[in-house]
Amino acid sequence: MLQAALRSGAAHRRAVFEVFARHLPEGRRYGVVAGTERLLDALADFRFGEEELDFLSSTRVVDPPTLAFLADYRFSGHVRGYREGDLYFPGSPIMVVEGTFAEAVLLETLTLSILNHDCAIASAASRMVHAAGTRPIIEMGSRRTHEAAGVAAARAAYIAGFDCTSNLMAGHRYGVPTAGTSAHAFTLLHDDEPTAFRAQIDSLGPDTTLLIDTYDVAEAVRTGVELAGTGLGAVRIDSGDLALAAQQVREQLDSLGAFGTRIVVTSDLDEYTIAALAVAPVDGYGVGTSLVTGSGAPTAALVYKLVAREDSSGRIRPVAKRSVGKPSKGGLKSAYRRLSPAGTATAEIVVTAGQPLPEGRPLLHELIKNGERVHNEPLSAARARHRASMAELPPEAHQLSRGYAAIPTVFD
Amino acid sequence: MLQAALRSGAAHRRAVFEVFARHLPEGRRYGVVAGTERLLDALADFRFGEEELDFLSSTRVVDPPTLAFLADYRFSGHVRGYREGDLYFPGSPIMVVEGTFAEAVLLETLTLSILNHDCAIASAASRMVHAAGTRPIIEMGSRRTHEAAGVAAARAAYIAGFDCTSNLMAGHRYGVPTAGTSAHAFTLLHDDEPTAFRAQIDSLGPDTTLLIDTYDVAEAVRTGVELAGTGLGAVRIDSGDLALAAQQVREQLDSLGAFGTRIVVTSDLDEYTIAALAVAPVDGYGVGTSLVTGSGAPTAALVYKLVAREDSSGRIRPVAKRSVGKPSKGGLKSAYRRLSPAGTATAEIVVTAGQPLPEGRPLLHELIKNGERVHNEPLSAARARHRASMAELPPEAHQLSRGYAAIPTVFD
Repeated sequence: MLQAALRSGAAHRRAVFEVFARHLPEGRRYGVVAGTERLLDALADFRFGEEELDFLSSTRVVDPPTLAFLADYRFSGHVRGYREGDLYFPGSPIMVVEGTFAEAVLLETLTLSILNHDCAIASAASRMVHAAGTRPIIEMGSRRTHEAAGVAAARAAYIAGFDCTSNLMAGHRYGVPTAGTSAHAFTLLHDDEPTAFRAQIDSLGPDTTLLIDTYDVAEAVRTGVELAGTGLGAVRIDSGDLALAAQQVREQLDSLGAFGTRIVVTSDLDEYTIAALAVAPVDGYGVGTSLVTGSGAPTAALVYKLVAREDSSGRIRPVAKRSVGKPSKGGLKSAYRRLSPAGTATAEIVVTAGQPLPEGRPLLHELIKNGERVHNEPLSAARARHRASMAELPPEAHQLSRGYAAIPTVFD
Repeated sequence: MLQAALRSGAAHRRAVFEVFARHLPEGRRYGVVAGTERLLDALADFRFGEEELDFLSSTRVVDPPTLAFLADYRFSGHVRGYREGDLYFPGSPIMVVEGTFAEAVLLETLTLSILNHDCAIASAASRMVHAAGTRPIIEMGSRRTHEAAGVAAARAAYIAGFDCTSNLMAGHRYGVPTAGTSAHAFTLLHDDEPTAFRAQIDSLGPDTTLLIDTYDVAEAVRTGVELAGTGLGAVRIDSGDLALAAQQVREQLDSLGAFGTRIVVTSDLDEYTIAALAVAPVDGYGVGTSLVTGSGAPTAALVYKLVAREDSSGRIRPVAKRSVGKPSKGGLKSAYRRLSPAGTATAEIVVTAGQPLPEGRPLLHELIKNGERVHNEPLSAARARHRASMAELPPEAHQLSRGYAAIPTVFD
């Protein structure tokens, strides 16, 4: 495609690509933007090196003029986008890329890969955080997804309000707080459960979290409090009827005087099972599989579409395909979130270039200007923005049940 | 966990970990092993460098003796495993890791991340390949998954029988054959469709694949054959009722004399929609989203469990937790596929150490011995093995409808 456009000359036309979702995952009321800063990091290194060019040349994937173009490739255009942690709805132009067709079309796969993954995870995470209320959630899904995706998932979950992750690389690379846990293997490694618990308490102090369901839960609780004292930090339950087990363990802990010992539950939790545990005496959740797989929606269905390009006279003209059943709307756009006087979001306003600007909170921000990154923010800013954007939504947006987009998207 | 075990001394006990799936994704009849060679590649580099150690030290994630252990870390044990392309069933011990507890427990996340991802993709891909019959399938899902996962997904799909991928990195890194396609953006970039088609044919020759649903399909077919001649390679349809559209396009192509022009269809295909197109005049499929998300099962649910370890007397003893509803079986195991005289698979036989060895095809092969990789095979071997293992299955295993594991897993 690039090769043919270089040959026809059209590759050098100014072009505008837009990232948007035609729909949210079935029944979801909002999506969460994540991945923007990861994309900006990746774009800084997006070049074709000798090794890549050799491959493309030896396999004849592209012709020599295209190879020459790729060898000099460096994105010199502009990128505007929604900032991480903010929300999006069907049709929200969450990223707008302007440049020549050639330089902008090359960014499709990288851009969509990062945004589709990270938005999917953050969108699922946000619902889990809401379901958990004030109770903390640990992200622990790395082992259920691609080894690099796990790091990005931990970052996206933190933006959406998770408290920490078991992925140490996410701590190292992005500063996400980390937390560990012991596994059944640790208990099984030792000759018996008391020996294992003693080893853990000796090394980590009584404030540690003991895993209590390797053998008999009630016996493990008794042993744990006996060895750590009533200052035992927490116990973790990873199997069985968690609501019932938490109730029984709470009663036992209280009867032993361990009133401050917390109860953490894990075991294939998702937003629904978290919500179902609201009345159980649970102090924290660990979530793995359902987080890293987007809780039923592992990709965000974002697309990267040409919405405007220069014509032969040099004017920028909106374009849109007419494929059956795949709506898209041409034109360079900007977007605003309309808020009521009380600060509640009432609509996503998407305006095509040339139309009068509406009232509302501007959603598109400059990220790259003339090829230079002009936006760089700490993860804490994205996390705070997510909380603020969520607080703008009408209350019904937070229902877990299937429904429709929380606010309408209004074009022009 | 590692720190506490180092302190108690138990970390140095000999231990055996096993990778297995307690269940297949709902309704699936078999799983496909993939990721083994990727894991062996990754293990060769699995060290803790200065940067990682600084992070662990400055954040006090672990204590100084643990840091010292990690600084010297190098896996020196043994790994046996099912080879890529082979099939697995609930309880199949697809990988067995032997070493000290400390060195083996550290490999859990890396091992499961790679195998859970790659097996999930290969398992979905295998069903799509079967549904497609003799028609080729192109993998084109990179933009719908994490940027690194897309490369691994293309590789896993190829093992399971996909013909090629649009992911050039998978071509570069793993030698997967690559194929490109033009997007609606290419047509929209040009002033009109004939200009776009002419540019593509000029650059790539008449044997190229024209995308025909940007505006009007019938007009695009007419234009395509007019410009490329009846030797036009292929046309791609990406929207609408694909069966109907393919029928109409086939009739139109034939009426224009373009009998050899192939019809490729794309648009959120999965194994079911591929199967539904069996009677349509389609010559090839492009599959994206459903492939990279495992067609409803984005992770393989593989776990990494301690199944045996040394006791205080130095003997290796089987261990297994008793957690409610999460079956696992202790002991060092080997596995064989029992075949009928006609060569049809009849059972997965899993044998604990010390039991007599059964008849059947041995499934576990040495991959790492004393820390050294002893297995390394080209991707083509995995692809051939997949075909051979599939041919062993009874015919009912290939049904797309929901069912049960194709063969029973028999322990001892």
